[in-house]
Amino acid sequence: METTMMHLPMTVQMIMDHGRNVFPDSRVGTFDGDSMVYTSYAEIADNAARLAAALQSLGIVPGDRVATFSWNNTAHMEAYLGIPSMGAIMHTVNIRLSAEHIAYIINHAENRVVLLDASLLDVFSPVLPLLKTVEHILLIGEGELITDIPTQDYRQLLAANKPLQDWPELDETSAAAVCYTSGTTGNPKGVVYSHRTTFVHSLASRGVDTFGICESDRILLLPAMFHANAWGMPYSGWFSGSDFTLPGPHLQPEGIKRMIALEKPTVTATVPTILGDLLRADSADLDMTCFRSIICGGSSVAPAMIDAARERWGVPVLQGWGMTETSPLCTVSHPPRDFTGADETQWRTKSGRPVAGMQVRVIDEEGNPLPHDGETVGELQLRGPWVTGGYHKGDSPDSVSDDGWLRTGDVGHIDQRHFVQLTDRTKDVIKSGGEWISSVELEDIIAGHPNVQQAAVVATADERWQERPLVIVVAEEGIDAQQLREYLKDKVARFWIPEYWSFTDDIPKTSVGKLDKKRLRDMNESGALKVEVIR
Amino acid sequence: METTMMHLPMTVQMIMDHGRNVFPDSRVGTFDGDSMVYTSYAEIADNAARLAAALQSLGIVPGDRVATFSWNNTAHMEAYLGIPSMGAIMHTVNIRLSAEHIAYIINHAENRVVLLDASLLDVFSPVLPLLKTVEHILLIGEGELITDIPTQDYRQLLAANKPLQDWPELDETSAAAVCYTSGTTGNPKGVVYSHRTTFVHSLASRGVDTFGICESDRILLLPAMFHANAWGMPYSGWFSGSDFTLPGPHLQPEGIKRMIALEKPTVTATVPTILGDLLRADSADLDMTCFRSIICGGSSVAPAMIDAARERWGVPVLQGWGMTETSPLCTVSHPPRDFTGADETQWRTKSGRPVAGMQVRVIDEEGNPLPHDGETVGELQLRGPWVTGGYHKGDSPDSVSDDGWLRTGDVGHIDQRHFVQLTDRTKDVIKSGGEWISSVELEDIIAGHPNVQQAAVVATADERWQERPLVIVVAEEGIDAQQLREYLKDKVARFWIPEYWSFTDDIPKTSVGKLDKKRLRDMNESGALKVEVIR
Repeated sequence: METTMMHLPMTVQMIMDHGRNVFPDSRVGTFDGDSMVYTSYAEIADNAARLAAALQSLGIVPGDRVATFSWNNTAHMEAYLGIPSMGAIMHTVNIRLSAEHIAYIINHAENRVVLLDASLLDVFSPVLPLLKTVEHILLIGEGELITDIPTQDYRQLLAANKPLQDWPELDETSAAAVCYTSGTTGNPKGVVYSHRTTFVHSLASRGVDTFGICESDRILLLPAMFHANAWGMPYSGWFSGSDFTLPGPHLQPEGIKRMIALEKPTVTATVPTILGDLLRADSADLDMTCFRSIICGGSSVAPAMIDAARERWGVPVLQGWGMTETSPLCTVSHPPRDFTGADETQWRTKSGRPVAGMQVRVIDEEGNPLPHDGETVGELQLRGPWVTGGYHKGDSPDSVSDDGWLRTGDVGHIDQRHFVQLTDRTKDVIKSGGEWISSVELEDIIAGHPNVQQAAVVATADERWQERPLVIVVAEEGIDAQQLREYLKDKVARFWIPEYWSFTDDIPKTSVGKLDKKRLRDMNESGALKVEVIR
Repeated sequence: METTMMHLPMTVQMIMDHGRNVFPDSRVGTFDGDSMVYTSYAEIADNAARLAAALQSLGIVPGDRVATFSWNNTAHMEAYLGIPSMGAIMHTVNIRLSAEHIAYIINHAENRVVLLDASLLDVFSPVLPLLKTVEHILLIGEGELITDIPTQDYRQLLAANKPLQDWPELDETSAAAVCYTSGTTGNPKGVVYSHRTTFVHSLASRGVDTFGICESDRILLLPAMFHANAWGMPYSGWFSGSDFTLPGPHLQPEGIKRMIALEKPTVTATVPTILGDLLRADSADLDMTCFRSIICGGSSVAPAMIDAARERWGVPVLQGWGMTETSPLCTVSHPPRDFTGADETQWRTKSGRPVAGMQVRVIDEEGNPLPHDGETVGELQLRGPWVTGGYHKGDSPDSVSDDGWLRTGDVGHIDQRHFVQLTDRTKDVIKSGGEWISSVELEDIIAGHPNVQQAAVVATADERWQERPLVIVVAEEGIDAQQLREYLKDKVARFWIPEYWSFTDDIPKTSVGKLDKKRLRDMNESGALKVEVIR
């Protein structure tokens, strides 16, 4: 007995069409630093169709790669819709990478066209001489570019082209977009999303128990559209008819506060650092009660911040775990329905349960599955309809297990209801005399000290224990290692308490704002850190 | 550039596993007429795995068809999970069809096993001699069956089998289930769902702007699991960890009231008739404030009922349009976000906007697309990832347009924001002197008269106008045709006001509770209706 169902490919075209047809009046606002510039869905869809026609006129055919190098703005949304829908592949280039890495990934993905945000000319200029495949640059906004690569004004080119009417029929397993990992070790690696994975991920994201994106949402899109698809919200929001607030380059606390005042967003996604900024902001000119939820990811959120957001604003913090390799949604930390008010924060500090369709397991060093007991720590591995099974051009072939699960490089445990708790990165975990110490847990606890601003923990060589934790800490004057060791005494196992301490003014971050532990380890090995040892 | 994403087939297995792994303590309650009998998700998944092993022991292999003939109960949920997950195809037989039609569809689908609800022995007995392919009957509950077909006790068989551990790897486009249309004209036709369509439909159903099914829901599952997948809720609820209340055969108002009192459901789906029963029930012993939403489908809901549910209970009625051919979700009638309180009911009486992923168009009699202006009426056609492209064994090949859209047989219009309004069935619309009169609209308005219980409108032959509406009406004593014609005067166009009236005590219904217009037309043609004519 064969299925009788029609096989309609699930594509970005469908997402684009749905937003345009059902929600023509929904709007996308881009912040100019002072006020909002609005564009309707109808107009954005029209521009996406003009962009597709323009790219065709430049010789772009299905399968070709078109890069974006841009902040979150209206043109970027047009690219998200128009490029994949014409069968080309959108490459969202991470503007925070080094010029060498930017050139590397544009060359590696063989991009023929770059959509370049004029406000990023300074960042992009050093990349220009290194490019090998780019034939056209479309400049969005005012600016001058010194290059032999033919350059056109994006808006003029769109105006000169009629909206594309005949969109190609696409195979749903064809590539829609490519995004490179931030490459904290080695060269960045390309994850190539298909139309199908983007479509299904968008549907999943709209679930009540996922992000619950819906028509009445006003999304403050703080996650970068150049990194991990901005948590998939450009597509899930458009599919739902949500209004968008796009910050452009204005990601400082003052700008964010202004956008919140202007737009009263219902939902945002951000990193703990920004949430901390908002919590520290003067509450007199910041009304956060408009939010139904603040999604937090990238690194773990301190319980004190979750408590503060609830107590001060009445806003639940929704922690999520995701990565470029997973489109990016893996888990979200909705408390289970049998939670009591008292334990709410405890649930919200977890990494969460798998989104419907995602599967997660925990594995020991020999590749054997470990029990889901909420304690046993091992490497976390994932499978699902929107998970990568490798990297472009076969990079890092060992990133997937023999039986087809993605090795996340994250370490943690899973409980009987599949609540996942990340405890560390595989490469950051500290192996001290055969026992594992979680660098992340130590960081969270130390950063919870009222006089500590930031803390990073990496392994340092130790004669007796092979590895011991080294704490790099930014603290108020007068705070010393002995005080912090005292502070830790009733909070962690005794063997976790670090002997190695380095006080500094700033901790280096990666291109996406995470603690740059690779750099810290290098600095430690080369003697660039001033380390005191207290036993 | 090839996609790097893993191709993980999207199957019912994934839905089953997610519910079992993430929500082992969620529960399914079956009503025994007085109280609830609860089974945990963990136990149901265990039983589903035992059922799969039991079916294997009976020789069932992937691709074989296994029928269910049952009310909504725990065993039916086990079948929903276990049969498709082992690669067999679940055929949910409509218990309300005639014995001939029941035998026809079981033979047509070549079912090898039937899971038979003992409370339906009387209904099934006349079918037995007509069966040609059934090799085993599994009897659920106590009862005696007189047949040569080998019969076993369902629960004993499950207890005798260990839960299946090694589930087969399935192709996502392989068949998961088959459901036959209710066949108001001709023989029923089989729609064969695939694993993929079931999975994607379930994801879509969980969207906030769709049904919003989630973990905190307690679903009162009134729609029959033997008809159009009970609106997909067995799967979307299980995927979400919702609690279920399954009514078994207890669908009378008293039973429903008792289940509501016991379980305080958050959501249900039903037909307008049942909603009307609840609205007429004594409010002293019926607390409906537990509901976040009442989904209504099958036929249009009168505005007065929508108003009453909101005013009396504070519960929004969510109208939906669906059919066996579409898994069944097509549209839902959430008001747009710019609605004002005053026009809420107006939006809720519409058939709704397409669910994310569904596409709808309106077509004239020559097959040309009509404008989306909220006025121009034509045939509605659909496309989407969970829509059928035909019927089992090639029945009714003209059900799909040349360019691949499903002909719904429904007539209506679409507005600029894709709000669909059904006005009639293609075959029920009344063509009066070149103009179309909607039988459904007339029925709704007449049924809105305070002294009218039910009304059906069909075409009757007329010398001058070719066709004119004939009203079959159940009304309180003292109400006559002249009064009802008066009542219609300021509510419809003058040429809509019917001259043909037939007063009766009851109106025949189809197997799924809709007005049986085919039968009414036959009765009219054969002179079985007493018709008075007032001009």
